[in-house]
Amino acid sequence: MTENNNYDHLREKIIQQERVFDGKVIRVDHDTVELPDGGQSKREIVYHNGAVCLIAVHEGVMYFVRQYRIAPDEFLLEIPAGKIEKGDAPEATAKRELEEEVGAVSEKLSLIHQFYVSPGFSNEFVCLYEAENMEMKEQMLDDDEFLDIVKIPLQNLRETLADGSVRDSKTIIAIQYVIEKHNL
Amino acid sequence: MTENNNYDHLREKIIQQERVFDGKVIRVDHDTVELPDGGQSKREIVYHNGAVCLIAVHEGVMYFVRQYRIAPDEFLLEIPAGKIEKGDAPEATAKRELEEEVGAVSEKLSLIHQFYVSPGFSNEFVCLYEAENMEMKEQMLDDDEFLDIVKIPLQNLRETLADGSVRDSKTIIAIQYVIEKHNL
Repeated sequence: MTENNNYDHLREKIIQQERVFDGKVIRVDHDTVELPDGGQSKREIVYHNGAVCLIAVHEGVMYFVRQYRIAPDEFLLEIPAGKIEKGDAPEATAKRELEEEVGAVSEKLSLIHQFYVSPGFSNEFVCLYEAENMEMKEQMLDDDEFLDIVKIPLQNLRETLADGSVRDSKTIIAIQYVIEKHNL
Repeated sequence: MTENNNYDHLREKIIQQERVFDGKVIRVDHDTVELPDGGQSKREIVYHNGAVCLIAVHEGVMYFVRQYRIAPDEFLLEIPAGKIEKGDAPEATAKRELEEEVGAVSEKLSLIHQFYVSPGFSNEFVCLYEAENMEMKEQMLDDDEFLDIVKIPLQNLRETLADGSVRDSKTIIAIQYVIEKHNL
């Protein structure tokens, strides 16, 4: 996308790399960079394998999950989502999460948007899919996964967005998309 | 928001806390938690002071910035944004970023959405404002800030969103909002 443009006057280069944490979900570097004007600065960088999330609408309701998120210390309302395990394809991950969290299978997933969620310090990249022709089966959560399914009728989505119930970026994007698509 | 509901069956508790990195932008913990069923697991948590971002529309164009982001290693198109410094109010930060990055002052900022960007591992919380009655002055960047202003006519926003030029979550939220508000 940026191939045809020259943005070299904006580029920073890593001149010294230091790994300060190597976890299961994230790796953290504290690097020294050369700025476009030749000066130096420090950068804190979080590397992440990326994630997927899903718009799941079936028979006039949109599917969400309510779960405890320890970093913000809140019980957030989110669309179904999950981390991409190393070597897995985003679409296969999305199908698996749809089965596990919602208990549904979908004939076809359409890619709606792709985005970094916090590009100032993290490379986490998220693919947002829409599940088409969903067939409902049973929720099959992982052993260390605890969440409630929340179903919101399409006609209540506009109010759900307006009243501040949704405090998660991917979920706001998904609801905005559904409101527009279904002309709510 | 969650005060009237009981979600205790979803809660995790930190039982051992270990700080593995203490930076200028982020602090990283590698904690042991007790799960809702009494089992234990590890959690990697990134603490961040939060950020603000801005919808800035003036005379039929929406203002963006193009900047190099070292974590994703891309020159991203984003709405104006900035980290909240400790002790600063979000709205004051948004006014400052509008002046620095866009070179504009606004009589009134309206809070449009508030969201976590990556609640699975980070507590970074972002406030999205809309700048009203903007008056254009001069861009005043920090010494270590390098970015280009990009102006996109409102009638091109739908295409900009559809063609994959926007790879940043807060910017997708902002464009979807402007498309709906201005009925584009």
